[in-house]
Parts: sequence; C-alpha cells; structure tokens
Amino acid sequence: MNIDMIRAAAQRLAGHARVTPFLNSPFIDEIAGRRVWVKPECLQRTGSFKFRGGWSALSALDPDTRAHGVIAYSSGNHAQGVAHAATLHGVPSVIVMPSDAPALKIANTRALGAEVVLYDRATESREELGARLAQERGLTLVTPYNMAEVIAGQGTAGLEIAAQAADLGVTQADVLVCCGGGGLTAGIALACEADAPGLRVRPVEPEGFDDVARSLRSGRIEHNNATSGNICDAILTPKPGDATFPIMARLCGPGLVVTEDEALNAMAQAFLRLKVVAEPGGAVAFAAALCRQDQIEGDDVIVTISGGNVDPDIFARSLATLT
Amino acid sequence: MNIDMIRAAAQRLAGHARVTPFLNSPFIDEIAGRRVWVKPECLQRTGSFKFRGGWSALSALDPDTRAHGVIAYSSGNHAQGVAHAATLHGVPSVIVMPSDAPALKIANTRALGAEVVLYDRATESREELGARLAQERGLTLVTPYNMAEVIAGQGTAGLEIAAQAADLGVTQADVLVCCGGGGLTAGIALACEADAPGLRVRPVEPEGFDDVARSLRSGRIEHNNATSGNICDAILTPKPGDATFPIMARLCGPGLVVTEDEALNAMAQAFLRLKVVAEPGGAVAFAAALCRQDQIEGDDVIVTISGGNVDPDIFARSLATLT
Repeated sequence: MNIDMIRAAAQRLAGHARVTPFLNSPFIDEIAGRRVWVKPECLQRTGSFKFRGGWSALSALDPDTRAHGVIAYSSGNHAQGVAHAATLHGVPSVIVMPSDAPALKIANTRALGAEVVLYDRATESREELGARLAQERGLTLVTPYNMAEVIAGQGTAGLEIAAQAADLGVTQADVLVCCGGGGLTAGIALACEADAPGLRVRPVEPEGFDDVARSLRSGRIEHNNATSGNICDAILTPKPGDATFPIMARLCGPGLVVTEDEALNAMAQAFLRLKVVAEPGGAVAFAAALCRQDQIEGDDVIVTISGGNVDPDIFARSLATLT
Repeated sequence: MNIDMIRAAAQRLAGHARVTPFLNSPFIDEIAGRRVWVKPECLQRTGSFKFRGGWSALSALDPDTRAHGVIAYSSGNHAQGVAHAATLHGVPSVIVMPSDAPALKIANTRALGAEVVLYDRATESREELGARLAQERGLTLVTPYNMAEVIAGQGTAGLEIAAQAADLGVTQADVLVCCGGGGLTAGIALACEADAPGLRVRPVEPEGFDDVARSLRSGRIEHNNATSGNICDAILTPKPGDATFPIMARLCGPGLVVTEDEALNAMAQAFLRLKVVAEPGGAVAFAAALCRQDQIEGDDVIVTISGGNVDPDIFARSLATLT
C-alpha cells in the first residue's frame, strides 16, 4: 500500500468519481473559531466516499475475474458504492447487510443493481457469511477497508484535499476524518504525507466507539465493547483495520470523539450553512471542528463530510436541534 | 449586455465564487425518464447563485464609488449575495427586504455585515425606497436583475454549464432555469448562445407567478396578479425585467410551470438523491424535470438548483412528502 497505488486509482477514477469541492461559510468559521474547509463527500456518487473505493477495486480487477461478480458486506455506504461500481462495470454484485441498517440504504443498494443478503448484527459474523458466499459463487470479495485497492480509492479524496488546500494557501492544518475501519483516514493520510506534509490527519469517532482513538494512544489495536446502538451507523466497526491501523499509527495525530447530539447538531449546521445533507456518521468530523476547538491546532481546519445517506426521520431530528 | 461582459465577470469571479459541480443520480434519471444533470447553485457562497451577480457588480465598480457603499432590495438571496460581496470588498451595504421574508434570510443578511431596512410588501415599493436611500446616502444601487453587471455575473454559471455539458458529451439539451426577474435565465442563455448553441434555456416558474412564460408566449411583458402568497419566495417578481426580457425573448424556449407541491417534492428528491438542500424557489426547475417529462425534449436535461436558503420548518414539510 503506497502513494503510487493512490495515484493509479486516481487515474482510474477520473471521469467516473466526482471531484468534490471545498465548501466554507463565515457562520461556520465563527462557531469554530478558525477557518473551516469542508470536503463534502456526501456529494460523491451514491452519497458517500465509498464509491471511490468501490470503483477503485472493481476497475483494478482483471476482466475475467471481474466478470464473475463481486461481494461486499457493509452497513450501507460501502454496499452502495460497490453495487453502483459493479453495475457500471456491467458485472453482478451481492451485498451482505445488517438487517437493522437504515431502510434507505438497503433499498438503494437493491435499486443500484445488487442482490442484498441480510444478516443479524448480534448473532452472525458478516465476515464469515461473506467469505462463504464468495467461495460458493466464485465472487471476488471487496472488503470495506482492509483491501489495498479500496484504501487507494479512498485516498484519492486526499489527493484532492492536498491540491485544494494548496490552492487556498493552506499548508498547515489538521484534517479531521470520519473514521470507522480507517480506510478513508489511512488513504487520506498517505495522500497528504506525499502531497501536503503539513496537513495532519486525525480520525474522529462517536463516543463509545472510539477504538481508533484508543488504539492510537496505546499503540495496539483496541476493540469497542459494542457494535451497535449509536446513531452513527456508518462508522460502527469493532476495531481498526489490520491494514489501516499501521498507516494511521505512523501518520495520524490524536483521535477526537463527539457525542450523538453533537453529530446531530453538526448535520443541522451543514444544512443551514453549507446546504449539504450529512448523515450522522458522516458529520462527526464536522462536529469535532465545531465542538472541540481546544483540541485542534492552527488557523485552518479541514474536515470531511463523508456521507449523506440518512433517513428523513433522522434528518428531521437534526433540524429540531436548531429550534 | 453581451458575452464579453460575462467572460470579464468570470475573470473577476475566479477564486471568489465557487465552480459548482454537476450532480446526477440513477434514481433521478429513472423518475425523469432521461438523464438529468443538476447544477447545484445552492452550494454557491451565501447559498445561492446571487453571490455571482453581487460579486460581479461590486468588483466592476470603480474603487472610489464602491467605497461609499451599495444598496440592494431583495427577498433574501440577492440581499445575502450583495451583503457578502460588499463585506469581502470592505465596503458597507444597506439591504431593503420585505418584512415577510424568511427569518433565516433576514438574519443571515445582517450577519453578513449589511444594514437591513424592512418594508411592507403589500403597501410599499421597494424600488422607490431603494432609490431614495441610495440618493440620501450616496450608495450605489445594485438591482437584482436589470443591471448588466449583475446579469453578467449570473451568466458565469452558464459558462460553467456549457463547459461541463461539453465534458459529458452533452451538446443538445434543454436547460431549465428557476426564473424570477430573469437575471440567471438571461445570463445563462447568453452564455449558452456563445459556448453551447445546442443548449436551449427555458425558464421555470411557480403556478400563479408565470409572468415570464406568458410574456414569452405573447411577445410582450406580462404581469402577475399577485406578488406574494406562494412558497417559492425567491422568485416571486411582478414581471420580467426590462433588461432580461428581450434576451429571454430572443434566446429562450417555452417556459414551464410547476405547483408548490411539486417544488416541495423536488426538494425532498434533492435531499434523498443528490444530498443538497434546495429552497422552494430554487427547486422549481428540478421539479419540472421530474414532473413535466412530456414538455421536455431530448435524452438529457440540465437543471439549476438556484438556492438553498430555506427555513427548517419548510424543509421538514418537504421531507414529509416522502412518507
């Protein structure tokens, strides 16, 4: 896993993934006490950065292998990214999803052309189920964050961040990244190491699911006690990825942690000031910029809004925080 | 008013206004029965395309005149665009707003550095009030759609549309534009005439406020019966602009009309599928793509989402159309 793989992925993604812009607002800067530059990956195809990794993985397969189809397991965003990338490549996809995933994500994944297989998050292992189906049907497994080509795809967002920050003259800043298994975080960290070494990537997680923050502190992989029960469904992973943790440990600054209410309020601020739709797990980095001023360094901060696939009732809850 | 003024405005806006991307979704294409390319000007600075015209007008003034400050009248989006452009230029601004404008727009305009003067939409003329204040205080009046430099600024969105459509290989398509006084519509039409002559611009208006559609049919300026009482507050103008109508009459295809409910549902689809926040008046062109299939020609349609400055309660109403 290295920067050359990210640059190669960027070439394969050109014209297929969107280059998302930087957004900002004087109102947000005032709340945060510094200039905040938002990378809205909710505007990426399928509504999250996961399309980058999905397209990267699909486009890297040799055509004969790809023709048999792919399988993925995901709470929803990786599912949609892989399903859409597979359909656009003209190959079948099977997606293993938890039965308690947001209804919108399940419906979207099916509509994007995938066969959806549901499992019980509490009693079944998605890894085992995925591996078994892959073997039975000759499908290639596209895992959500431990595959080099997936990390490379997510890292293309980091190449864009490095270039967009340079355009603004921003050379020193924390880059806050919404973090589940660490694919986006590790990918952006590798891209910044190469193209913008003054940018320091820091993972942001929901309270109670701060496995990456704790792992960065202890220097070894730490687990969460729970695997569900938080509104930030997109980033509830049991532990940092085996492939992503060494990268994060080498390159990332300390992790940040926010509450569910802070994530909901950040969604409302993204609605009000940036006009983009963030999902709870996609809003935690933005929430950290708004609510953890004392833990961030410098006059500028860059944040990812990593996804926007949120059910309307949850979004209405976020709007209610404004009144 | 000509294409050279639009190109000059684009040079002045470079690095100040955002280049908004094209967004699309397979779900939207399926509803619309053709490929839909959305230009989300809700992502522009201040949440609407009006920042383009505001910046264009401010940056075109000679510095001595500009230093005295500017005045504008607006239901809100032009207000915010001019106020922010003035503050960024370091000069004062006075904004004349209707007292029934959305609370968010009034508050934002003040926070962006303007002095806000409220008037009664039913009993007072904003034109007369604006002219009087301008004379009394030595301010330059920046009108919302009849000034050449404002139309030129809005037209920069059309230069981007022409280039982005060309990148996609789209050379023949209707371009649906949310239309109030016609500044954005006329500006985009002039830009497309020069850079993408196969793109035909068509204004879209709310039911009951279809002055431009009727004027295009009759060949002369027609008035609306009412000036308020529709959720699409941003585009409720009494009649087409004197400067914009001749341009629209020469270049535009027939106007389209949508209902309030169609605008609200289009906002919900923009939330669900594009992850952007549209206001009612900013969603009418998107609504026409979704609901007026038979009145649109071709395999592709391009639509503007012209603004996203909507109060949370109205947005919650749009989300309720999904259930």
